[in-house]
Amino acid sequence: MVTHPFDAISDAEIRLTSKVIKDSLGATQKPHFCQIDRLDPPKKDMIRYLEAEKAGKPLPQISRITYAYFYLGTDFYKSLVNCTYGHVITTQKQPEGVVGPLVWEDVAAIEDLLNVHPLVQAEIKKLRLPPSIKVVCDPWIYGTDDPKEKRLLIQCYMYLANASHPESNHYSLPLKFSPVFECLTRKFVRMDYLPSGVDEKFVTETQPWTKFPFVEYHPDLNGETPRPLKPLVVQQPEGPSFKIEGSKIWWQGWEFYVVPTAREGFAIYDVHFKGRSVIYRLSLSEMTVPYGDPRPPYHRKQAFDLGDSGFGTTGNTLKLGCDCLGVIKYLDCSVTDSKGQPKLVPSTVCLHEQDGGLLYKHMNYRTGGAVTARRREFVAQTIATVANYEYVLNIIFDQAGEIRIHVRATGILSTMPIEEGLTVPWGTNVGPMVMAAYHQHLLSFRIDPAVDGYQNTVVFDDVEKMPAGTNINPYGVGFVTKRSFVEKPGYVEQSPFTNRSYKIINENKINPISKRPVAYKVVMPARQMLLADENSYNNKRAHFATQQVWVTKYRDNELFAAGEFTNQSQNDTGLKKWAYRDENVRNDDPVVWATLGFTHIPRVEDFPVMPVETHEIAIVPNDFFDKNPALDVPQSTQSFNKSEYYPEASSEGSCCKSSL
Amino acid sequence: MVTHPFDAISDAEIRLTSKVIKDSLGATQKPHFCQIDRLDPPKKDMIRYLEAEKAGKPLPQISRITYAYFYLGTDFYKSLVNCTYGHVITTQKQPEGVVGPLVWEDVAAIEDLLNVHPLVQAEIKKLRLPPSIKVVCDPWIYGTDDPKEKRLLIQCYMYLANASHPESNHYSLPLKFSPVFECLTRKFVRMDYLPSGVDEKFVTETQPWTKFPFVEYHPDLNGETPRPLKPLVVQQPEGPSFKIEGSKIWWQGWEFYVVPTAREGFAIYDVHFKGRSVIYRLSLSEMTVPYGDPRPPYHRKQAFDLGDSGFGTTGNTLKLGCDCLGVIKYLDCSVTDSKGQPKLVPSTVCLHEQDGGLLYKHMNYRTGGAVTARRREFVAQTIATVANYEYVLNIIFDQAGEIRIHVRATGILSTMPIEEGLTVPWGTNVGPMVMAAYHQHLLSFRIDPAVDGYQNTVVFDDVEKMPAGTNINPYGVGFVTKRSFVEKPGYVEQSPFTNRSYKIINENKINPISKRPVAYKVVMPARQMLLADENSYNNKRAHFATQQVWVTKYRDNELFAAGEFTNQSQNDTGLKKWAYRDENVRNDDPVVWATLGFTHIPRVEDFPVMPVETHEIAIVPNDFFDKNPALDVPQSTQSFNKSEYYPEASSEGSCCKSSL
Repeated sequence: MVTHPFDAISDAEIRLTSKVIKDSLGATQKPHFCQIDRLDPPKKDMIRYLEAEKAGKPLPQISRITYAYFYLGTDFYKSLVNCTYGHVITTQKQPEGVVGPLVWEDVAAIEDLLNVHPLVQAEIKKLRLPPSIKVVCDPWIYGTDDPKEKRLLIQCYMYLANASHPESNHYSLPLKFSPVFECLTRKFVRMDYLPSGVDEKFVTETQPWTKFPFVEYHPDLNGETPRPLKPLVVQQPEGPSFKIEGSKIWWQGWEFYVVPTAREGFAIYDVHFKGRSVIYRLSLSEMTVPYGDPRPPYHRKQAFDLGDSGFGTTGNTLKLGCDCLGVIKYLDCSVTDSKGQPKLVPSTVCLHEQDGGLLYKHMNYRTGGAVTARRREFVAQTIATVANYEYVLNIIFDQAGEIRIHVRATGILSTMPIEEGLTVPWGTNVGPMVMAAYHQHLLSFRIDPAVDGYQNTVVFDDVEKMPAGTNINPYGVGFVTKRSFVEKPGYVEQSPFTNRSYKIINENKINPISKRPVAYKVVMPARQMLLADENSYNNKRAHFATQQVWVTKYRDNELFAAGEFTNQSQNDTGLKKWAYRDENVRNDDPVVWATLGFTHIPRVEDFPVMPVETHEIAIVPNDFFDKNPALDVPQSTQSFNKSEYYPEASSEGSCCKSSL
Repeated sequence: MVTHPFDAISDAEIRLTSKVIKDSLGATQKPHFCQIDRLDPPKKDMIRYLEAEKAGKPLPQISRITYAYFYLGTDFYKSLVNCTYGHVITTQKQPEGVVGPLVWEDVAAIEDLLNVHPLVQAEIKKLRLPPSIKVVCDPWIYGTDDPKEKRLLIQCYMYLANASHPESNHYSLPLKFSPVFECLTRKFVRMDYLPSGVDEKFVTETQPWTKFPFVEYHPDLNGETPRPLKPLVVQQPEGPSFKIEGSKIWWQGWEFYVVPTAREGFAIYDVHFKGRSVIYRLSLSEMTVPYGDPRPPYHRKQAFDLGDSGFGTTGNTLKLGCDCLGVIKYLDCSVTDSKGQPKLVPSTVCLHEQDGGLLYKHMNYRTGGAVTARRREFVAQTIATVANYEYVLNIIFDQAGEIRIHVRATGILSTMPIEEGLTVPWGTNVGPMVMAAYHQHLLSFRIDPAVDGYQNTVVFDDVEKMPAGTNINPYGVGFVTKRSFVEKPGYVEQSPFTNRSYKIINENKINPISKRPVAYKVVMPARQMLLADENSYNNKRAHFATQQVWVTKYRDNELFAAGEFTNQSQNDTGLKKWAYRDENVRNDDPVVWATLGFTHIPRVEDFPVMPVETHEIAIVPNDFFDKNPALDVPQSTQSFNKSEYYPEASSEGSCCKSSL
């Protein structure tokens, strides 16, 4: 199949990229690759391409450009490669202190090293562990606390686990020492001893281990008897209602591209509904997870899960009949290994339909006649495992022109040791002698709109009372909306009590019915933003996380809210730069960045594996169409849905006796 | 089957209630009934009953008490009847001006009357309608604007519709005159002429009708070609995982009662999970829908959909394979007709299971081993049609101890006429010469908790930064929670930016792991509350809608947030009284009232039938259990779920050609 400019990087392109870079460096240099992916085509060129494609005209040629991050020794480089012509465009050594995302081969090597490193082993020896207990390490990215630190470091949080089962939950038994290593040279840097008391001073020497119970999640180990549950099977006897060709999907009036990427998991491109353009590009742009435990070294726990790791590189291989139901199409993601060879992350994006309850209903009480349509949804899903946590990212399309960004956080809390009988005000004890610190998850979604074209404006509407007791409002019941225009880049504060709603409008297209500009609104709940002090590194590195709604003017390659390189960064080089440029964004090419945040105060129920916490942003047509665009959805009927009555006889069963 | 004290009113009880009342009044009196239902048993008695039931001890006898609202002439009465012993307990004439909920027989009678009433017909005649066009009336409750008004009035909003089809959408053609009738005597009161311009003064005499298009939703009329959609069938080959006996339901560790009621749709009682008590009673308590169009007579558009009508009395008859999928159990609701005879609202509550996506997942990146559980949900659903609008109320239980109140608003906008070419700042034009005014939906949910017993406390926790630069917080990253206790009745303001969370705790039960009191938290989004001016009737009648979280001390028969009688009320006689009593609620028997509100700024897409707008409150265990209570949920597997791969061949089909 011919490559479309939006298509994901191919294995051949990964090989070609690393090969031309290696060739350009000469045989003596051994680059250590940490990420290779394709760049987005320049938007200007791509718009011409899409227009030609839609018009059935000859397609302009757009070169496939890739980027590569790699190390030579401890020096960090970025190259751009033209894969169409097979040459290196540029190779730039990055400033000292700028480092790339973690490579899982390095992480694994550090884990292996700990098993033999004499200083670590000496510390472990002090525990006097029985053979039934093993030591497990979670290598953590090393959050910035020192501007002079230039090395790529790894902080190793150490745990115990049941040696007899590979899925024993080490997070239930955190140890109190934490070696720090240099990632690339594997050099031991320092042994940190972890506070386990009510303040930063309570640090003990490593003591012999005393037995206490594991809190296990795996069914082999958790001691639970599975509860009876009967199957609920989703069948699509006539197949799915969507069609896929290459990266392009057609479903219920929608057309768009779903493209796996190493950093974002996947991106969505060129979204149209019923033949009209809505969005040029939609993606998760960054997530930061700062922890609120103030005691060193925990203050360094601030992950940037896209920039430091990558949602594609940490993507799960999704399994049929497990991570979603029905008829499923899977997409793979190709990433690089450290040698520059392609490594497959199979089935890391799944595409499928689901039932979303009622879409609309009206019953005429005079006749009893009802119209009822169910809401079928199309879901693009990926799940990333960033060490302890899982993030489930769904982009959901409905039949009425709505797009929902739906995020579920699950997985395992990152834990700290705590002395028996103590509690701390910045964490929850979630098991015996194990504490989970309060933390935040702050996700930035980048919405590059194309509402009936590329020339758009961002506005926000507040709802305000009308003055009471006037001629027009004698009874004091009136209220109206007040519109504000975003003229320059910057942020807009949340304002739930004025019902503030954010809209991306096209001032050049007026809805013939409402006489207002066509629009899509961005609906998101008001949330607490980044709590870290203004002068903290946590704050400086994640300026994007201090506000919920940002607007910038589009420029190519500005995709990541905290900037391109976040690992051990000292500053947000993304929105902190782009949102303060003095330029026009009204009736221009604005990009909206929406921060979905949640402050996670762990509950005991979140351990040893956390029931999902769900958060959403909705992107909803608002005077975009001239009526409900889902009137053509077939009515919901029994002949189509084939439901069944509850079998009254089965209520005689004795399986469900009261447990009271 | 023996009646349980929680069971819904029976047909026999409705008959008995009206009979003993009629007997007590004597043969000459003809009571005109508007509502009969059972009262809740006194809580103190009921707790003894439930405890005896759980212990298998002899059950105390609790009389079945019913209430009846009825008119004698235009006087409004309330009686209490002891159905166990078959006698009237008390009959009280209500103060002048207090009226009951609308009876649909009266509404229908008014609609019929309009078809013959000379003054109305004279007005209609001026329209010079062709036979293809008919007049339709939506009788509206008459929102209070005059303290001297004592009559039960109906405001008739008039529309045109296609005479050749019974489901033609009259809301697309509102007329400009609106007769007011006395409901009980059917007397004509006044003809209101509706403003259709930019201010209150633009009122025209009735003019001959000029043709313009209907905006139709019904598939017979809407002119749409149904889009291709393939079936998605939910099958439960081994039957459902729930069991029902009478009103009681067992499902996945949960036990509770679901009881249809005339006013609330249904109520949930005595909720336990895994043998532990969570909630005594859960219900929708009131909803008000005030409109923001300030021009008389629209200022009187303020509905109280429970108190003025009733969610049970306006409940839809749900249909198999239509309003929900899978294996469905339906419950009926028995209400009274105006004669005191039972009238069945069949299948108005449905009970079923659904798949809710992932419940939890963790993948061990070292081994690739994953645990994955899907979230099965149990849903109790009802749908009420209050004239133009539909409300879908779901109470959803999951497998991890969580309860979700899930509301969907759909149906048809209540519309006003507007002159061609005009727009108004308090409404959206949604069709030719038809405007939908801005309005609010403010729903109060009553949560009567029983968190590990009946002695509970309401608290709220805010998340606060720790001071930076101290010994304990040198890097400025620390944050902690601050707890506040609700000691007296009142309200608590929403505070999303401090991550304020509301918890119902049991101070007498400490979680052995976290060392904190066991708790359930109430999670709800921050919302704009009632916009109407403080001195307006809209505000005085719906004081509950001015705040999102209220706490009162439990008293029997305090169930409805705006008070017992809302129709043409001049004051909120519910929370406005109960939340200002000077009494202790801490470690006592508090009731939580949660207002879920949304300001509805109509979009063109909401017409002629509105895609659902969804809102939720979650009630979530928080240090209630000693670990994730769903570890015993079976793992999600293909052998259980039977999904299928996307058939690659089918992508060759030509059905989905680009519409671009």
